[in-house]
Amino acid sequence: MGTVAVVIWMVFLCCCSAAQGQRRQLRFDGKTGEFRILQVADMHYADGKRTRCEDVFPQQMATCSDLNTTAFIRRLILAEKPDLIVFTGDNIFGFDATDAASSMNAALEPAVSSNIPWAAVLGNHDQESALSREGVMKHIVGMKNTLSQLNPPEAHVIDGYGNYNLEVHGVEGSSLANKSVLNLYFLDSGDYSNVPLIPGYDWIKPSQQLWFQRTSAKLQRSYLNKPEPQKGPAPGLAYFHIPLPEFANFDSSNFTGEKQEGISSASVNSGFFTTMVTAGDVKAVFTGHDHLNDFCGELTGIHLCYAGGFGYHAYGKAGWARRARMVVASLEKMDKGTWGAVKSIKTWKRLDDKHLTGIDGEVLWSKSSRQKRMLR
Amino acid sequence: MGTVAVVIWMVFLCCCSAAQGQRRQLRFDGKTGEFRILQVADMHYADGKRTRCEDVFPQQMATCSDLNTTAFIRRLILAEKPDLIVFTGDNIFGFDATDAASSMNAALEPAVSSNIPWAAVLGNHDQESALSREGVMKHIVGMKNTLSQLNPPEAHVIDGYGNYNLEVHGVEGSSLANKSVLNLYFLDSGDYSNVPLIPGYDWIKPSQQLWFQRTSAKLQRSYLNKPEPQKGPAPGLAYFHIPLPEFANFDSSNFTGEKQEGISSASVNSGFFTTMVTAGDVKAVFTGHDHLNDFCGELTGIHLCYAGGFGYHAYGKAGWARRARMVVASLEKMDKGTWGAVKSIKTWKRLDDKHLTGIDGEVLWSKSSRQKRMLR
Repeated sequence: MGTVAVVIWMVFLCCCSAAQGQRRQLRFDGKTGEFRILQVADMHYADGKRTRCEDVFPQQMATCSDLNTTAFIRRLILAEKPDLIVFTGDNIFGFDATDAASSMNAALEPAVSSNIPWAAVLGNHDQESALSREGVMKHIVGMKNTLSQLNPPEAHVIDGYGNYNLEVHGVEGSSLANKSVLNLYFLDSGDYSNVPLIPGYDWIKPSQQLWFQRTSAKLQRSYLNKPEPQKGPAPGLAYFHIPLPEFANFDSSNFTGEKQEGISSASVNSGFFTTMVTAGDVKAVFTGHDHLNDFCGELTGIHLCYAGGFGYHAYGKAGWARRARMVVASLEKMDKGTWGAVKSIKTWKRLDDKHLTGIDGEVLWSKSSRQKRMLR
Repeated sequence: MGTVAVVIWMVFLCCCSAAQGQRRQLRFDGKTGEFRILQVADMHYADGKRTRCEDVFPQQMATCSDLNTTAFIRRLILAEKPDLIVFTGDNIFGFDATDAASSMNAALEPAVSSNIPWAAVLGNHDQESALSREGVMKHIVGMKNTLSQLNPPEAHVIDGYGNYNLEVHGVEGSSLANKSVLNLYFLDSGDYSNVPLIPGYDWIKPSQQLWFQRTSAKLQRSYLNKPEPQKGPAPGLAYFHIPLPEFANFDSSNFTGEKQEGISSASVNSGFFTTMVTAGDVKAVFTGHDHLNDFCGELTGIHLCYAGGFGYHAYGKAGWARRARMVVASLEKMDKGTWGAVKSIKTWKRLDDKHLTGIDGEVLWSKSSRQKRMLR
C-alpha cells in the first residue's frame, strides 16, 4: 500500500469511526439540558400516494393517503426538534405494502432525511409483506441514521428481532459525560401466538426478559460505581409494540388520556411487568397497537403509556386526530452552571391539527418526588 | 498401589457407580408399568416430640406432635409403595426448629430409611432456622437416597436453590428403556419478595423459566428423535411450593377438591404458567403452601393441583384430615407384552384417617384423550 493509499485509508477509518461514534452515542443537549424523544406508533404505511386513508371524514377521503402520515411526521420533527425518533411498530401495514423494503423506506424517510437518530421496533403487521420479521428488521438496521439493532450481541439465543438498548449520556464536558444517565430499552413484542392453546397476540419471552434484566443490572452497576458514583439507578424507558396485560388495570379515574377500545395485549401474562418492577430502573413503558387508546397510567412505580394511532392508513376514528407522544427528560442544573443527572421526565401528546395542539402533559418521574403533576 | 489395593479400589468404584446409577436413574416398574409419586406438602417439622400440633381437636392436643407427621408418612409409604417421594417445601418450620439440619433429618427420615428415592424443594419457611436457603438446600442434597440437586450445572446463573429435573425412563429391557418417558421438573419458588414495591411472596424468575424452557426443549428433541422416535412430547410434571396466580382461576364448578382459603401466590404474575403452556409438555403442576386448599383444576391444558396440608405443626383445620397427593403414571401395553410410552396420569389424595381413605381420584392426562374422567 502506497503512502497516499494509507492516508486515504486512515481518513476513511477516521470518518467511519467518527460517523459511527456520532451515530451511536446519544447525549443530552448542553444548552437546554434536555433529551427529547418523539414516539411514532402505528404508521401502517403501505404504498404511499396510492394507499388511501381509513376512518377520516368522507370529504377528506379523496385527497387523503399515506402522504398525510408523512406530512404529519415532518411537521412534528420541525415543531418538537426531537433528539431521537422512536417507531414502535406497525411501521408498515405489510398486507397492503407491495414491497416491504420500499414501504419501510418511504415510511421512515422523514426520520432518515432529518438527520436525527432514530430507532424502531416491529409490530404485528411489519412482516406481512415480502419480508420475514428477521428480514424486515435487518432492512431497518441497515438504514441511514438509525440506531436500531437486530439483537444484542451478548445474548446468544434470544426470541424475536429488534431487542436492544441505547444509552443516553450526560452533557459533553460535564461530570456525567461518559455515563448513561437515561437508558432506553427496545423489545420485540412479537406478532401472534404460535402456541395452539393460546390464542391472540404474542408476548415478551423469558430469553428477552433475562437479557433485559442483565442489561439493566449491568447499567445500574456502572452508574452506581466509580467514576462519579451515583446514589440511585438512572431512569429507564421501555419501548415496544403490544401493550402488557397490566395496561388493563386502569380506568378514567387513574389515567391521563383516553381509552376508547379494549387492551389488545396477549391473552396470557408472560411476566415482563414483574421483571421491570424487579429491575427497578424503568419508569415508563411506551407502546402502540391500540390506536384509539392514548392514555398513561401508573402502576407499581411504572407508567404504562400508549402513544395513540399515528398513521392515516390505520383504523382510527374520524374527528379524533391522529397523534404522537413526546417524552422529554431534563437534567438537574448543578453549581457552576453545569448539568448533572436526570431531574425529571415529562410527556405530552401532539395532535395532527392546525396547531399541532399539545395535550395531556404530565410528569412521569422526578428525582425528588414520584408525585404526578399536571403540566398543561 | 499393590494388587490388593487396586482390587479394593475397583470394587469401590464399581459399587459407587452402581449405587449412583441406581440412585440417579428413575424407571417405570416392569411388572405394573407404573411410576408412583407421593407428594408431601408442608410438613412444617420442628423439634419432633417436643413440638406440639396446631389445629387439632383439644382432646388430641396432649399426645400430638411432629411424630404424628412422621407416623403419617410411614403409613403412606407402606400403603402406596411410591417409586419417588416429593417434598414440596416448608419441610421444616424453621422459626420453631432449634437446629435446621437436625429438623430436616428428622422430617425426611421416613423417606431416607425407606430406601425409596426422594426429591425436595424449598418452601418459604425452610430457611427460618440456622441455615440459609442455600445452606438448607445443600444439606438436603447431601442426604441419603435423595435425587435433589442444588441447581442445574449448565445454567451458570439461576435464581434460587433447588432447580433441577429428573428423567423417568421406560421399563428396563423395553424399547424405551433409555428414553425419558416422564419428565419431572423441580423449581424454587422462593420465599418473600425482596422488591420494595411488590409485597408478599416470591415468584419463579426469568432465569429459572429460561432454564426450564431449554430443558424441556432438549428433552422433547431427544424424545422425538432417533432412536425410537416418538410422535408427541413425553408428559411432564412440575413440583414447587408457592402456587401460581393462575390457581385463582377456579371455583367449585371447575375443580376437584376443596378451596377453603385464598390463593397465596405472589402478588404479581411472573409468567411461568405462560412459559409452561408454551413449552407444551407439562400436564400438571403440584404445589403446597395453602394447607386448606387441596384442589386440582385444569387451565389451558395444565392441571394446577394442591396437595393439601400434611404436617401437624402447621396451620390446618381440626376435623379436616391432614393429607397427601399421589400421582401414578401408567405405561401403554404393547404387542408381545412389553411396555411403551406413558398412557395416562392419575391422581388422588390420601387422608390421615384410620383407613388412609383415598379421595378425589381423577385422570390428569391420557394419551388418547384429554377428557377428564372420575376414577373413584
